[in-house]
Amino acid sequence: MSGSSVLFHFPFHPASRAARLALGEARIEWEDAPVRPWEDDCPVHDLNPSGLPPVFQTTERGRPLTLCELPAILGWIEDHQKGDLLLPLDAAERAEARRLTGWFERRFTDEVDAVLLHERMEKPLLKLGPPEARALRDGRDALKTHLAMLDELAATRDWLAGRRLTQADLIAAAHLSVLDYFGEVQWANWLSLKTWYSKIKSRPCFRPLLGDRFVGVPPSAWYADLDF
Amino acid sequence: MSGSSVLFHFPFHPASRAARLALGEARIEWEDAPVRPWEDDCPVHDLNPSGLPPVFQTTERGRPLTLCELPAILGWIEDHQKGDLLLPLDAAERAEARRLTGWFERRFTDEVDAVLLHERMEKPLLKLGPPEARALRDGRDALKTHLAMLDELAATRDWLAGRRLTQADLIAAAHLSVLDYFGEVQWANWLSLKTWYSKIKSRPCFRPLLGDRFVGVPPSAWYADLDF
Repeated sequence: MSGSSVLFHFPFHPASRAARLALGEARIEWEDAPVRPWEDDCPVHDLNPSGLPPVFQTTERGRPLTLCELPAILGWIEDHQKGDLLLPLDAAERAEARRLTGWFERRFTDEVDAVLLHERMEKPLLKLGPPEARALRDGRDALKTHLAMLDELAATRDWLAGRRLTQADLIAAAHLSVLDYFGEVQWANWLSLKTWYSKIKSRPCFRPLLGDRFVGVPPSAWYADLDF
Repeated sequence: MSGSSVLFHFPFHPASRAARLALGEARIEWEDAPVRPWEDDCPVHDLNPSGLPPVFQTTERGRPLTLCELPAILGWIEDHQKGDLLLPLDAAERAEARRLTGWFERRFTDEVDAVLLHERMEKPLLKLGPPEARALRDGRDALKTHLAMLDELAATRDWLAGRRLTQADLIAAAHLSVLDYFGEVQWANWLSLKTWYSKIKSRPCFRPLLGDRFVGVPPSAWYADLDF
């Protein structure tokens, strides 16, 4: 876990962002290797059979170790931490953090990212034409439902899964931060969630994400503002 | 972890099957509560915000504990096992087991289950009409690609992730066993994978799955045959 570790990531890919946040929280050092996974010569294609980031290359006891995708990276951090950095010790909060992790990996990804981020981010990147009004509307409706659910959690808990920051907070913040870059989160409507987001946005692990820039699309006015 | 534990599961849902296999491997005892998640009065709706099985209810240190969905159930088993029942101790094989877990949760589910099991299983259950030839063809083509990849793994490794049985084997077998019930796996074309499947099919944890019956569809002739 020294300077010889490398993280291959796409800066606006939610799972890649979650890996950066988790590695940052764990105070692991790594070299940044931003990639464009849709391009033929993307180095991730040779490292991960799915062709997707994030991929973390490190060495362990002198042997090279390649961790493909977020669950392997989170699991490895957890294995090494022997503490409760990503998952709390309380069994119910552990289960809740894992439930929310799965929620983002499937529900939020399918209902929001695959629709709204497809229109706003993938279409310009892959030159697939202008966004479709109907898909934007569907994605924004789905986002509202998810934000309402998260706002309710944030209203009654210190962090999304309970009393401690967990990987669920990092994953949720990773997804929301990409949407926030594109101005898709109306924070004034979700004040409990806004308080939660301002806490997580102020953490040192978040700083590098606030410097990311998407070619041709400037960030929302409040994207990098800690006092938004 | 006594007779007071209950598993809510849909018998032909791959993630529910994976939970049964993992709990079985861990020799945990539970009461079976088969559910039909698409029905309004399904008890899972009150237990899990996503409304989906599997949900495992147990008690820990006298307090009730509800584990919603497969990652929470697998993680809880892993927490309690303090061994290498679901994930091997070797870091590279651990990462590989986690990579394959993610592969089934996203790629296989999206490309095969959501197409082929939708046509063969969900349509009759939800009375959505007969299967569409084109979707069946697409799902079968995708399945072939996945089976070729798994056959290659099985040809060069004792188990899918390496030298030890892991949660990746249980999850893969859970998905393939549902497809096998519907006669969708042509084992003669994938002989290394067939050897792997016969090993896992012979384990005690698998026996209850071989007794499952889908109303109106008898199993493939070899579904419950250990010597297929």
